[in-house]
Amino acid sequence: MSALDSIISDLVVANRILAREDVVDAYGHISVRNPDNPKHFFISRSVAPELIERDDIVELGLDGEPVREEKRALYLERFIHAAILEARPDIGAVVHAHAEDILPFGIAPATPLRPVIHSGSFIGANVPVWDIADRFGDTNLLVTNMQQGRDLAQCLGQNNVALMRGHGFASAGRSLIEVVRMSVYLPRNARALLRAKHLGGEIKYLRQGEIDARNRGYSPYSAETWRAWEYWANKAGCSHMLSKPGSATAPHGTAKKR
Amino acid sequence: MSALDSIISDLVVANRILAREDVVDAYGHISVRNPDNPKHFFISRSVAPELIERDDIVELGLDGEPVREEKRALYLERFIHAAILEARPDIGAVVHAHAEDILPFGIAPATPLRPVIHSGSFIGANVPVWDIADRFGDTNLLVTNMQQGRDLAQCLGQNNVALMRGHGFASAGRSLIEVVRMSVYLPRNARALLRAKHLGGEIKYLRQGEIDARNRGYSPYSAETWRAWEYWANKAGCSHMLSKPGSATAPHGTAKKR
Amino acid sequence: MSALDSIISDLVVANRILAREDVVDAYGHISVRNPDNPKHFFISRSVAPELIERDDIVELGLDGEPVREEKRALYLERFIHAAILEARPDIGAVVHAHAEDILPFGIAPATPLRPVIHSGSFIGANVPVWDIADRFGDTNLLVTNMQQGRDLAQCLGQNNVALMRGHGFASAGRSLIEVVRMSVYLPRNARALLRAKHLGGEIKYLRQGEIDARNRGYSPYSAETWRAWEYWANKAGCSHMLSKPGSATAPHGTAKKR
Amino acid sequence: MSALDSIISDLVVANRILAREDVVDAYGHISVRNPDNPKHFFISRSVAPELIERDDIVELGLDGEPVREEKRALYLERFIHAAILEARPDIGAVVHAHAEDILPFGIAPATPLRPVIHSGSFIGANVPVWDIADRFGDTNLLVTNMQQGRDLAQCLGQNNVALMRGHGFASAGRSLIEVVRMSVYLPRNARALLRAKHLGGEIKYLRQGEIDARNRGYSPYSAETWRAWEYWANKAGCSHMLSKPGSATAPHGTAKKR
Repeated sequence: MSALDSIISDLVVANRILAREDVVDAYGHISVRNPDNPKHFFISRSVAPELIERDDIVELGLDGEPVREEKRALYLERFIHAAILEARPDIGAVVHAHAEDILPFGIAPATPLRPVIHSGSFIGANVPVWDIADRFGDTNLLVTNMQQGRDLAQCLGQNNVALMRGHGFASAGRSLIEVVRMSVYLPRNARALLRAKHLGGEIKYLRQGEIDARNRGYSPYSAETWRAWEYWANKAGCSHMLSKPGSATAPHGTAKKR
Repeated sequence: MSALDSIISDLVVANRILAREDVVDAYGHISVRNPDNPKHFFISRSVAPELIERDDIVELGLDGEPVREEKRALYLERFIHAAILEARPDIGAVVHAHAEDILPFGIAPATPLRPVIHSGSFIGANVPVWDIADRFGDTNLLVTNMQQGRDLAQCLGQNNVALMRGHGFASAGRSLIEVVRMSVYLPRNARALLRAKHLGGEIKYLRQGEIDARNRGYSPYSAETWRAWEYWANKAGCSHMLSKPGSATAPHGTAKKR
Repeated sequence: MSALDSIISDLVVANRILAREDVVDAYGHISVRNPDNPKHFFISRSVAPELIERDDIVELGLDGEPVREEKRALYLERFIHAAILEARPDIGAVVHAHAEDILPFGIAPATPLRPVIHSGSFIGANVPVWDIADRFGDTNLLVTNMQQGRDLAQCLGQNNVALMRGHGFASAGRSLIEVVRMSVYLPRNARALLRAKHLGGEIKYLRQGEIDARNRGYSPYSAETWRAWEYWANKAGCSHMLSKPGSATAPHGTAKKR
Repeated sequence: MSALDSIISDLVVANRILAREDVVDAYGHISVRNPDNPKHFFISRSVAPELIERDDIVELGLDGEPVREEKRALYLERFIHAAILEARPDIGAVVHAHAEDILPFGIAPATPLRPVIHSGSFIGANVPVWDIADRFGDTNLLVTNMQQGRDLAQCLGQNNVALMRGHGFASAGRSLIEVVRMSVYLPRNARALLRAKHLGGEIKYLRQGEIDARNRGYSPYSAETWRAWEYWANKAGCSHMLSKPGSATAPHGTAKKR
């Protein structure tokens, strides 16, 4: 399997994982930068993530437009991906989704969403809330052009996640595995914080030094990181599509299909 | 497939989707106006929505009575549908259900249910609460005649959704796809608002201009709208029953059955 | 199928429904009075409700002891059933379970559990909370003899449901179908009330006249009641065991197995 | 089946049960002391609990290192198990997990987690919260050496469960069945307490005498304890791996596979 074949497979797996873990439903999408051409990225055409197959994947430029002729409908909000990948050369993959349990934090801005659990550390110390109305007034809330996408990317800045008021979130990672992990644990962190707020009293957030320590220790193909990727792919019914870089026989991926 | 055959299939699909998405359980129902005769509508006989087949569908008049001899039991609350379709010629489809997460807003009337998330915009800016006791005193809470149905329809007015105190909701859309979408996202919007209230502080509701902008952009067979319909039908196990108007081969509907 | 065969089948179905609807887990049980001998009742031996088969059913007397030799282990808390059936000749079936969402109301006695939704009306206007410690001091909280069972039955009085502090609930109905329905909607009513309390302001409980009106309209084999029984049995995978009294061919029960 | 074979099977079953009951996901683990050598224990190599097979089980010493050559990756946090088994000769099995609903109690330390429901009694009257930062400052929150493990074990003391701030919990039982049961009911007890707090007013916690009475009555192979183990194994799809000590034919375990 070529590197490109492998990244397309990983993108399909990522879509199915996000669907299975309730991060996306009919809506929401994930993209990955073309490793051979950093000015291009891959994303599905307009299909629900759970139903995506390899031939649904299209290649877009950093203007959000297809790099070759494409007659099929594309995601309206592909500009989120284009603008973040344009603004952040360090970023390799982007998720946009409406995961239900993060929505309250975009609607009730008095309570900032911050990491409180170790698996939530990857969202970073600061999660800004972007309100499309601040600059664009009354819209349908969707990010449907590069101007809106760039405004969102500016709000995201050097952070890993931005909430989008009344809409959802955008997250940015170095790799597919990283951005999927961040997007799966983001709602869990949100629920833990919401319930801790119910209990009342002082909340013990993760310390900056803890966030930094976890970030330093992150490695995309460590046994620990791969373990979750393999587990989620199994749950999503696509463990047969797993391939582990540097592993000729991919023993983890293929051995654990139950 | 004739237009009528197609609408009957869509009605079966709509029932199964509402069951799969936990909008209905053993109770709750959905109707669609007969496109050939606006004084008639289709709805199932008295069966749990998940179990409905094509031959369970019956045709009723705007008085809630069957237009041809029918020996099988009918839904007691079919008058909800008859009265709303009678009062609102602009409406093509009606849902009545008891979706759990909207119930608190009918019971605790101090907190109005309003759209806070973009997918909830279709419930409209104002969601009135109808209390059957206001006019009918002590009842079993069910809408079992045209007088009660018309009182509910009057409370609904030109809105899209009315809550029914201690009971559930009625929603009205131009088409099956629209009313199903509204009914699926209604509980999600309710949960987002409930949790935002927990977080406290100012709540950022959708702005009227945002609700209007989203409503203007709605198209029942756009790629975006169809994507959700297809996705939900797949989850409900009835993607093989999908048919897309204007699409001879229905490529989306048939290609994505996994 | 004889009347007794039929009631044994119904009892198995009832167990599976309660398991599927998360009313019971490994623990919790349901009993039904012997229609031929009101001093006897049927209940499973000590097995998780989901796994019960016809030959697990045993016949006990109103002292909670088996009426014929039985070497298999019995439920420790069978005295709940014996004592309620002893105290209430009007009652034909009893459930005891630990359904999670009713537990808070037994632990935080300042908030009485009362019906707020129409499907919750059958729990009755008053749901007393029984605290085993009031009379028996420090126990393991289980009702393991007739003295404890009778104390609980006394607290239940003429009501339909009693909460058991830190433990669960006991519910009493005229028939299996009635007590299952009550037990399924009890946690839903509890959740609706809990969330309405979160929203704050005045709570609109069901009115006494509404509870009475619903109770008067209840009929165990009406199309509406049967619809839920059939739906739940389908979900629990045992629709093939359904039998409808007075229906030689049981068309509803057998036709709708999907 | 030898005693050792049987304990390995039980450990696989325990892993699958914890996964099915949402106590663990890709992360979290369970260990059991070697009955033939109290200075050794069994635990899986680094695999998601749901996917564990018999040959994934490895044997470690009380220093957390493998007792024979092992090239496969091990759990980073195996020192939790080693240190607790070292400190507590009375303990036979340990769980470490991140079950979501206990997290708020580690983050909002003003509300102690205490037993409020009978099935939660086994967590014990006192559930200390261990904060790794108190002694180790800024870490990645993981317990990755014996020094950290021993500090956690010291905080646990003679209790059954310790919460780990921003991370999860460690629980300690006399047997696999006991520690699994404790770990399954721990989140349920946490939810019941959280919701009781929402309702407000005085909370009725279990009394010390009740906790003691339940503890005295516990027996790992009583009909009641076995019933849950069998039920959970069935749900997790591994009832065929059950073996009941002292039962040559293991009738419960094999008869109830549906």
